[in-house]
Parts: sequence; structure tokens; C-alpha cells
Amino acid sequence: MSAPDYGHAFTLWRDHAPDWHAYTHHAFVEGLRKGDLPRANFLHYLRQDYIFLIHFARAWALAAAKGETLAEIQAASATVQALANVEMPLHVQICAEAGIDAGELEATEEAAANLAYTRYVLEAGYSGDFLDLMAALAPCVLGYGEIGARLKGSGGPYADWIETYAGADYQDLCRDVGALIDSALRHRLGPDWTALPRAAHLAQRFATATRLEVGFWQMGLDGA
Amino acid sequence: MSAPDYGHAFTLWRDHAPDWHAYTHHAFVEGLRKGDLPRANFLHYLRQDYIFLIHFARAWALAAAKGETLAEIQAASATVQALANVEMPLHVQICAEAGIDAGELEATEEAAANLAYTRYVLEAGYSGDFLDLMAALAPCVLGYGEIGARLKGSGGPYADWIETYAGADYQDLCRDVGALIDSALRHRLGPDWTALPRAAHLAQRFATATRLEVGFWQMGLDGA
Amino acid sequence: MSAPDYGHAFTLWRDHAPDWHAYTHHAFVEGLRKGDLPRANFLHYLRQDYIFLIHFARAWALAAAKGETLAEIQAASATVQALANVEMPLHVQICAEAGIDAGELEATEEAAANLAYTRYVLEAGYSGDFLDLMAALAPCVLGYGEIGARLKGSGGPYADWIETYAGADYQDLCRDVGALIDSALRHRLGPDWTALPRAAHLAQRFATATRLEVGFWQMGLDGA
Amino acid sequence: MSAPDYGHAFTLWRDHAPDWHAYTHHAFVEGLRKGDLPRANFLHYLRQDYIFLIHFARAWALAAAKGETLAEIQAASATVQALANVEMPLHVQICAEAGIDAGELEATEEAAANLAYTRYVLEAGYSGDFLDLMAALAPCVLGYGEIGARLKGSGGPYADWIETYAGADYQDLCRDVGALIDSALRHRLGPDWTALPRAAHLAQRFATATRLEVGFWQMGLDGA
Repeated sequence: MSAPDYGHAFTLWRDHAPDWHAYTHHAFVEGLRKGDLPRANFLHYLRQDYIFLIHFARAWALAAAKGETLAEIQAASATVQALANVEMPLHVQICAEAGIDAGELEATEEAAANLAYTRYVLEAGYSGDFLDLMAALAPCVLGYGEIGARLKGSGGPYADWIETYAGADYQDLCRDVGALIDSALRHRLGPDWTALPRAAHLAQRFATATRLEVGFWQMGLDGA
Repeated sequence: MSAPDYGHAFTLWRDHAPDWHAYTHHAFVEGLRKGDLPRANFLHYLRQDYIFLIHFARAWALAAAKGETLAEIQAASATVQALANVEMPLHVQICAEAGIDAGELEATEEAAANLAYTRYVLEAGYSGDFLDLMAALAPCVLGYGEIGARLKGSGGPYADWIETYAGADYQDLCRDVGALIDSALRHRLGPDWTALPRAAHLAQRFATATRLEVGFWQMGLDGA
Repeated sequence: MSAPDYGHAFTLWRDHAPDWHAYTHHAFVEGLRKGDLPRANFLHYLRQDYIFLIHFARAWALAAAKGETLAEIQAASATVQALANVEMPLHVQICAEAGIDAGELEATEEAAANLAYTRYVLEAGYSGDFLDLMAALAPCVLGYGEIGARLKGSGGPYADWIETYAGADYQDLCRDVGALIDSALRHRLGPDWTALPRAAHLAQRFATATRLEVGFWQMGLDGA
Repeated sequence: MSAPDYGHAFTLWRDHAPDWHAYTHHAFVEGLRKGDLPRANFLHYLRQDYIFLIHFARAWALAAAKGETLAEIQAASATVQALANVEMPLHVQICAEAGIDAGELEATEEAAANLAYTRYVLEAGYSGDFLDLMAALAPCVLGYGEIGARLKGSGGPYADWIETYAGADYQDLCRDVGALIDSALRHRLGPDWTALPRAAHLAQRFATATRLEVGFWQMGLDGA
């Protein structure tokens, strides 16, 4: 199956990220697909992912703050809103069903792999501009979309998780984010941006964030 | 009529802002109340206010990025969402009815008084923390609430504008923002925060932002 | 006399800043040249300039934080060091000789024109990247260089001020900053950066900062 | 031997950082002390430390940008200057003597432990205020001072490294930074700041940064 189409920049960046396959085909992902990922590792991942989502929402809020057009501000703001008021409450509920209450979630110590990834993204955004932030955010948003599309219909104990990212809503979000990125690049750097030194720098941001995603899955596999 | 109650910090800060009366009783405001503000000045104000709202939404997005609790992130994010997806489209519509189309809005040159105020707020947020940002944002959000409450029922050509800020929705928002600020202060500085040097510093932020609000009304009165 | 050469970007930006002449030939500047600027206005300017320099040093420090190469970090850091440990103590001394002691300097209320300019520069830097910051800083650094070069040898009561900016040290600094900007542009956007949308955006930053410089001189002329 | 005295906040924070001993007595440190750390690990550490120092200089520059008094700006700026124009060139020279040329240094891929630590510090500074940045920077600056003081006179192949941090210049720097932190806390939070919720939050920042320092040594030990 070919990878889903989330736009021009994503296609370029993914092809230049040495760890893209290690990320999207990580043993943790394969465990989700085959259904043999131990429950303890999945719950460890969920606990860390709760902390991750807080910082991820903060990073999208920073994107709204750094947007240069009303459309950019609106798109980033809608994502924060979805994360903070829909996805995070849902996450709390999934954890509750798994026996992890809100207090335990709040008390989770953030793993080093989590710190590394979230702070890398936020710092890229603060030190750079909207484009740096988009390049650092893209591997997570769009990688989960690609993984969801590939694992779609796998069934098994992690079918709910898989269908969340395989579903039409999330796939639409991925296409929207991909279009937002392409549009932001053209708006600032013109149609021929891929030839600029800046393009290599942004691809590097994407590649580093991808590497840190590998570390995040590995943290899920190692911890329990 | 006594001023509406938007919480503890606001009451303190307002009482220590030398320009609070000059802001809330500015000739521009009195013109709105009595209905004799020339239409041209109101439209000049509306055009600048459109640019203002973009930066104001960005500042609230920055607040979401700087929030330390999920509740802070959700509250700030909901405000961005309301500004970017409700208030700003409404603003565009009001301007359209007044004969100012979207293209003209976008092409408006930002007045110095506008630059001064919006960049002061954003820089306070970037250089400081969530509290600095709240202290710099409060005069606008809560001052408009106080003005709305005082002008309620004035009627005249600006009745729509007045009722927006006098209305229950906006007054509720003001109470929510006041509670958010009080809670954020206690969360970081404890119940006795008013005695700390930091308190004087935050009151100064509020006072400076209030001074810049006076400049914004004056810009509305001077321009046309 | 032709304007001094501070590099490629500066030449372009200056030619597209509608207020460049209004800034570099402002009545305040002409008063310095002819020597008939009232002393009270000069002292008012000096008091505000002290506050300005604090924020200006902060902005150059932010440039060091946002630098992407060791050379950028070193250049920006050297400028902060010169501002904080040489120029500002010198400024304190000049003010002392004029009868304004350190306490009075510290207690000066920041004028709106000062707030507008300094916060515009800092916010450009925080919201954007190193290039945004350079474009916003350039009118001050390089404009004073151009003014100094033009007024060189004018004599009169403001000869010391004039010679500071006309002198070889400051002119060297201007050429270094101009080269830093050209190099930073090429490093990120390649040799043909002037054709990119980004170039128009940066020229706009420069033009807005220039407009705010006009406001700063005017504040000097109005106040006392 | 008792630990050196770098001020009040440091003493408090160190005592509440669970990983302080794991950091200051890490096997890498003991290898430096006993002289049996393999050379390859030391060189791996040096290469990563070069990248670390760039981000560390950027973080101190951000501190200068966020300083609220001239003294804070001057102190932070002097540290950037020392890092960018003295320590880093020295580092390049040490690496050159060890056979690592500048090109190899520049081409080093940043390890995940390095990314985690440096971005945590920078993001703490961008999202929080001057105090957050100080609490995140302190474990590195002051921990190396404490390690240097303890290892002083150990001799062996790493004597030069040890004496750099044991020496009077570095110990003076540690006392200055400790005093800067104590002063910044009092300036903002008053003399009784230790009882505030903010104090627990800052101690947590220090503890997290300390944990990431452990990861940095471990990276040195693991890599080669």
C-alpha cells in the first residue's frame, strides 16, 4: 500500500529523514498491529502520552501565536482546541477505563525521551518561526496518520487506538495540516522554496523530530 | 453604579492604575455613550481594532502555550478560539456593513498606538511568564467589560457595540478571566501574593497596559 | 555626500522605507546638526534613550539566543557586551554630567513612543526568527551611523554626540552589522533571497521600525 | 569535605534533587577522578559538549534578554561572552589537540541526551521567566563547580579538565552565579520566597535538569 498523500513538503521531508522507517515500523507499532504488545507497555505509553499531549497542545498554541495570517491562526487554534478540549479528555477517559485515574496521570514522572521530544519541538518554535515549528510538529501528526492508514483493519486488542488514527476525521486532519504547511512555505518562501538553504534546515528539523519519535516508542517498549 | 466584580487581582490592579479613569471614561467612550462620536472616528477605530484583534488572539494563544495546568491551557485556548473563529468573522461582517470590505481591512496600516499596545502585551508574555501576560491582557478584556456595564442601555447609534460588551456572554467571560487570573496567582505565589515584590511588578504591567489603552482611544479620536 | 555603504540588504531596505528621510532628517536631527536643539529636549531624549538602550541590549541578547552559527552568536553577544558594559555606563556618565543622576534615570517613565519601538523590535524577534530581529534592529543601528556620517564635523553643542556616531568605531560597527545581516540572509535564503516573499516581509519590518524611529525623535522634540 | 557554598537557593535545590548524588558522583566523573575513563569516552563527551556549549551560550543570552535589571543583563551577558569568545574557542583547541578538527566538531550529530538537556533548559527559559531559566541552568554551572572542588588535585590524565573547574576563576564564577540567583529570587519574590508554591516549582525545574545531567554523563559513558 502506498503512503497517504499529506502534501508536498511532507513527502520531501519524509524521504530525507533517515529514521522514518524506524519510526513508522517500530517494534512498538508492530506490537500494536499484531496485537502482541504487552498491556503494561501500552499503559506506560498512555501515561507518558498524556504528558506529551499537554506539551503538544502548548506547541500548537505557540503556532497560533506565531501565525502570520488569520488562516494560520485559525487552523492552529482549532488544533489546540481539539487537543485540549476533545483529545485530552478522551485520553483521560481511556486511561480511566484502563484503571489509571486522573491523579495517577498527573503524578506521572515525565520520561527523558518525552522531555527530549516535547522540548525539542517547543524550543524549535520559540527560537525559530512558524515554519520551524511546523517541521518539528509534522512527524508526530502526520506519522501517526501514516501508521493509522497502514494498520487500518488490523483488529486485535489495539483496534480502538488504530481506528482513531486510521479514521476519516484524523486522516482529514492530516491532509489539512499538510496543506497548512505547504501554504505556509509558499507564503513565506515562494513556489521554489525547495532549492533554498532554508529547505535543508527544515528537513533537518523534521529528521531530528523523527529520530526523537523513535525514542518515544522505544521508551514505551522499555518501560512498564 | 458600582463597578462589576471581576475578582481580587483586578480590583487591586485597577485601583493602582493612575490612568484607569482616563481609559474607561475617555472622550471616545463618552462619545459612544452619548452617541455623538463621529461615524468616521468609529470606523477608523474599527479598522485598527481588526488588526488589534489579530494580535490579541496571538497573545491569548501565547497564554495557552505558557499555561502550566490543563485548566489554564483550556481557558486560554477557548478564548483564542472565540476570538479567531467568532469575534473576528463578526468584526469583518460589521465592517462590511459599514462599507469596509475585507481587502480594505487587510490593507490598513497599523497605527503607532496600536503597535505600542499589542507589542507591549506580546513582549510581556514572551519575556515574562503566564502572570505577566495576564496582567498585560487584563485592562483590555476587563476594561471593556466595565465600560460595557456602565454604558448598558445608553441606546443611540452605538447601541450594538455597547450591548456586545454589556451583554451576559461578555460579562461572564470577564468573570471567568478574572477567576483565571486569581487562580493563576494563587497557584504560583500562594494566598498572600499581594505582599510580594512581584505584585508591584504585575500592577505596573497592568498600569502600563492601561496607559496604552488611553492611547488607543485617542488614536480613534484623532484619526478618521 | 553619498550615504555610507553598510551592505546589500540595508541599501535595499532603506530604499523601500517610505519614512527613511523623515527619520534621518528629522527636525530633532537637524537641531543636533545646527546646534539649536533646546537642551531640555536633548536631556529628555537622553533619559528615554537610557531606557531604550536597556531594551536594545535585551534585543541583541535575544539575537544571540536565536543565532544559528557560532559566528552569529559571537557577533550578537559582543554587541550586548558593548551595550551593557560600555555604552550604558557611558550614558549614565553623560547624564550625570548633565545633572541627571542614576536614580532619576531609573525612575523615568517610559514614553509611549519608546514602548512602541522597543517592544516592536523585541516582539519581532520573539515571534519571528533571527532575520526578523535583524530587520527590526537595523534602522536604529545603521540609521544612527548614516546620521553620524552626515553630521560629522558639524561642531556646536552636540559635537560629542555627533562624533560618537560619526567616529571610526561606530562606523566599523555599522559595517560589521551590515555584513552580519547579509551573511545571515544568504545562509538561510540563498543568494537570490531578494525575489522571495520573505524579502518583502523583512523590508516591511524595516519600514515599520523606521516609522517608529520617527516617533522616537518626535517624542524627544515634544517632551522636555 | 563539605560542598562549596554557592548560596542559599542552590543549597536548598540540591537537597531536594533526588539525582544530585547520581549526577555529581556518576561513573563518568569517578572515571575522571581515578583517571581510568577510556579516552574514547572522553572524546565522545567532548564532541557532544561542544554542541552543548553552543546551546548553553544561547540559554545565557536568553537570560540576558529576560533580565529585569541592568545588573542581571550585565551578569548574563558577561557569561555569554565568556562562553562564546573564551570557552568555546578553548574547547575547539582542546579538541584539535585530541585530533578532532573543527569540521568534525561541526558535523557531530547531537545525541538524544544532549537534545533533551539543552532544549529543556531553553524551553524553560522561553516558556517561563528569568527564574525558571536560572533554576534550569544551575545544575550544570554549579554542579561542575562542586565536582571540580571535590576532584581538585586528583591528578592523572584528566587533571587539566579537573583543574579548569576546580580553579579559582571557575569557583568565583559559581559564587557569582549563586549570588545572582539569590538576588533575582529576592528581587521578585521577597525574602520569604521559599514558602511559596513557586519555590517548589523551581526546585522541580532544578531536579529535572539534574536528572538530565545524569543522562548526559551516561551518554558519555555509553558512546565512543
